[in-house]
Amino acid sequence: MALDIRTQALKKPVDVAEYLFTRLRQVGIESIHGLPGDYNLAALDYIPKAGLRWVGNCNELNAGYAADGYARVKGISAIVTTFGVGELSCVNAMAGAYSEYVPIVHIVGYPSTAAQKDGILLHHTLGNGDYNVFSNISKGISCATSLLNDPFEAATLIDHAIQECWVKSRPVYISLPSDMVQKKVEGARLDTPLHLEFAANETEKEDYVVDVVLKYLQAAKNPIILVDACAIRHRALKETHDLIVTSGLPTFVAPMGKGAVDESLPNYGGVYAGDGSNTGVRERVESSDLVLSIGAIKSDFNTAGFTYHISQLNTIDFHSSYTRVRYSEYPGVRMNGVLAKVTAKLGKLSIEKGPTPTNEIPEEEILSGEPTITQAWFWPRLGQWLKPKDIVITETGTANFGIWETRFPEGVNAISQVLWGSIGYATGSCQGAALAAKELGIERTILFTGDGSFQLTAQEVSTMLRNNLNPIIFVICNGGYTIERYIHGWTDAYNDVQEWDYKSLPKAFGAKPGQAQTYRVETKQEVEMLFLDKNFVESKALRFVELVMSWDDAPKALKLTAEAAAKRNAE
Amino acid sequence: MALDIRTQALKKPVDVAEYLFTRLRQVGIESIHGLPGDYNLAALDYIPKAGLRWVGNCNELNAGYAADGYARVKGISAIVTTFGVGELSCVNAMAGAYSEYVPIVHIVGYPSTAAQKDGILLHHTLGNGDYNVFSNISKGISCATSLLNDPFEAATLIDHAIQECWVKSRPVYISLPSDMVQKKVEGARLDTPLHLEFAANETEKEDYVVDVVLKYLQAAKNPIILVDACAIRHRALKETHDLIVTSGLPTFVAPMGKGAVDESLPNYGGVYAGDGSNTGVRERVESSDLVLSIGAIKSDFNTAGFTYHISQLNTIDFHSSYTRVRYSEYPGVRMNGVLAKVTAKLGKLSIEKGPTPTNEIPEEEILSGEPTITQAWFWPRLGQWLKPKDIVITETGTANFGIWETRFPEGVNAISQVLWGSIGYATGSCQGAALAAKELGIERTILFTGDGSFQLTAQEVSTMLRNNLNPIIFVICNGGYTIERYIHGWTDAYNDVQEWDYKSLPKAFGAKPGQAQTYRVETKQEVEMLFLDKNFVESKALRFVELVMSWDDAPKALKLTAEAAAKRNAE
Repeated sequence: MALDIRTQALKKPVDVAEYLFTRLRQVGIESIHGLPGDYNLAALDYIPKAGLRWVGNCNELNAGYAADGYARVKGISAIVTTFGVGELSCVNAMAGAYSEYVPIVHIVGYPSTAAQKDGILLHHTLGNGDYNVFSNISKGISCATSLLNDPFEAATLIDHAIQECWVKSRPVYISLPSDMVQKKVEGARLDTPLHLEFAANETEKEDYVVDVVLKYLQAAKNPIILVDACAIRHRALKETHDLIVTSGLPTFVAPMGKGAVDESLPNYGGVYAGDGSNTGVRERVESSDLVLSIGAIKSDFNTAGFTYHISQLNTIDFHSSYTRVRYSEYPGVRMNGVLAKVTAKLGKLSIEKGPTPTNEIPEEEILSGEPTITQAWFWPRLGQWLKPKDIVITETGTANFGIWETRFPEGVNAISQVLWGSIGYATGSCQGAALAAKELGIERTILFTGDGSFQLTAQEVSTMLRNNLNPIIFVICNGGYTIERYIHGWTDAYNDVQEWDYKSLPKAFGAKPGQAQTYRVETKQEVEMLFLDKNFVESKALRFVELVMSWDDAPKALKLTAEAAAKRNAE
Repeated sequence: MALDIRTQALKKPVDVAEYLFTRLRQVGIESIHGLPGDYNLAALDYIPKAGLRWVGNCNELNAGYAADGYARVKGISAIVTTFGVGELSCVNAMAGAYSEYVPIVHIVGYPSTAAQKDGILLHHTLGNGDYNVFSNISKGISCATSLLNDPFEAATLIDHAIQECWVKSRPVYISLPSDMVQKKVEGARLDTPLHLEFAANETEKEDYVVDVVLKYLQAAKNPIILVDACAIRHRALKETHDLIVTSGLPTFVAPMGKGAVDESLPNYGGVYAGDGSNTGVRERVESSDLVLSIGAIKSDFNTAGFTYHISQLNTIDFHSSYTRVRYSEYPGVRMNGVLAKVTAKLGKLSIEKGPTPTNEIPEEEILSGEPTITQAWFWPRLGQWLKPKDIVITETGTANFGIWETRFPEGVNAISQVLWGSIGYATGSCQGAALAAKELGIERTILFTGDGSFQLTAQEVSTMLRNNLNPIIFVICNGGYTIERYIHGWTDAYNDVQEWDYKSLPKAFGAKPGQAQTYRVETKQEVEMLFLDKNFVESKALRFVELVMSWDDAPKALKLTAEAAAKRNAE
């Protein structure tokens, strides 16, 4: 039989599944998210063999969010689902990762190649013999699709998918038919690590762009740096950091860029988001005669409803696939090389200082005798309590707008889904981030979600417990979808949610004695006490806090953004 | 402005959203499932105005499952989600409904037509300006797609979508951009109800087919009737029932056809599923010289792993789009008309009696002194306890195979997702079914799910409470994914789940005092006591039962089917 001859020609035959999981281990993945399903079961046997841990999520959407959170901490992640029912449950999570440039390898256990070829009427199909309909659904939200239907090309397709995932920083889709799991491929390939470097820019072209940038930069009177999400996603943080430190230029972040910059640096100036900016930031940024814009994504929620007022004539854009100086575009000139050379050749710059954000409580909040926890009070207060290297996850809603008012200590990794904005994301993401943190020896993962959002994916607290993770979870109890109320339906019932006894959930989800601690804080005073409570702060248990706020309170940036959204919806 | 002239020409101008929801009300929908999202909020205002109730689910996948369950009880349902994040979360539920012929109108709140046209960078997009990618994803799992971008065609597109949904009995997709909600359309159209009748067969052709069928039927020595899912989905239950009663022929159901037939009839013979059939059924069916097969879907799980042994030479197939007599096909000849005429002209038939299934406990179970609740004992025992018109929902796993051994009283509506088989479905579906039951005055909705499956969608118990529903929920506590264990990974950790304190969940999900009663039964004796407990049986509260069974116990039909699946996966 032809296949045997092929196998005999292999120097180090290994099974397809072993090859795949070994490659994932090589790129830094230590845990695989997902759920078992009958078309992937045989493949799951290879996970421990490859030195990987199986997470075992409660459902696939949550698993997808968790893989997203894991990738944002460790650089890449993987999820295993089953054909049809499993993979389609996480389409939303994969679309979010595609939208926000998060690299996830999605492995789908498929029926055998024979069953596919014959189009037989199996469960988990549409009953029409079409085995391509699900991979086609995923094509629009993946940067590569590798269907492993032939052992001869399997290793190449696996390598290609993982490389694309890493380099393009977006999800890829790999089908693994049940009969392919044990087919043999060339294991000798595994001795050569995957090539994950970006292609360097063409030297002459890069030097040309660097000269143009420097010409404008050195001529500018009050230049600034503005950092956004793609600096993180396209792995340009080191180059960005070096430029900020070496130049000393006032540096700001867009909301999606929160966490990209060391906010303890003296030249860190705060969040710029047009009308929703930190105090003093808008004036400084918009009066600048040159904005070095790194990795911008100018979406509505990232710009407080398109309220940027920066002229392109005063802007240099650094991106993963091009550089743009005013209106001159340089396609194919990636930011990393350009930023490194610009930093090396800075020369003398004219520096006009920017504002310095603090975590001081606003004066009206200090003067107020109101005991209720307000959004305006909480977020700067949180900033005082955070520690270097904390991972801070904020859900779409009051939390991911509120966090604009928090100045981070050094090394904070901030996770939020500002562009895709799928509520429920943050709780799933927290599971993945906390696991990644554990693997990296990072002490704290802290989640802020709303009660409405938490209800979508609440059971992933069970997965945290199952995997012995100990994040600190704050559920903002404010009676429903406050962000929606600000857009439309102020008191309408559709923006209410069922009132849960949230803090009874860790126990219901199987927390063993001592594995979880629960709290409820209703006043500023109680927050103060909680932040000082050693039993809370130093605990190794999962900590679950009901953080009670008013249903009609929101950060000012959210109010502005919601108003703009409501107006646009009606246009 | 041109639009004003158009509006002035309308006899009874009504808003697009009012038109849409009024049409839904007219076809029998009383409640709308879904979640709010900023692109659908303005539309939600019209739900109470049209006399509809808003359900308010916890997440969109669960809402999709619930809409599926509601449609299986009331004939059609509707769900509202928001662009991108919301709609993609329920892709799996819609694919399941497509696969299993369940009619759901899926309304997606879209960004304004202006935003779409300009391709602006809004939240809930992929950031690439492509506003068609999500509707394209839904195209493969919808039988019609109506994008309401122009008020001039909106009413026509709405009518078309709802008609297609009803007649083809599959999901349809309607986009409702935020700026279209209040645009005016012709309300006078609403005075004419939608035409939802199937087109009648061509008389001459139908009569020809009826004659052929009767010729074979009257010549047959021991004919039988075999009823499957499409008899339910394509609304041929009345014609099927009349044939069964008038002919007196031994009648069997495929697993997906459970509930299609009045099982209290004397000629009801049990479940036929090849090797997984009820006792005596296989012999009777496979020795028949003519099988009248109504609405068959011959999938693996519906045939105990393709173990049918019925020759096409002995088969007449009745379907929604064709009739087939032995190998002669009659395209376009729908079953309803043919069955009615066949019943009217039956003539003298040769009837050889079939087996009569009972709910007697198997002898070995009676003799066993083992107190543990076994699958072999439980399902017939359940049959003794069920009441006429109960709605019985069984999750993919031990429950939907176990129910093959339950003979139903008259009028039971059995809900299960045998072909699509997405675990988690049943709990969501139960919410929708229980709501539909309430609207129809049906007393009991009873759910059987497994612990592994329950974890995927557990929070929909909250939605049941929020809507004051009182289903009886049995969670089979058997330590994980037993159906998967039978396929692969007998004791592997990936088939385990976190152990929850399940019965604490109704309270955690906000049950008010007296709103929910919880139980745990670990022995046959405790089941007996529960079934006799008036406080349980006659309660108007939601009842939640932990039904403890052994991790390695499964109905015999599941064992057979799993064995076949494992073999096919390895091929």
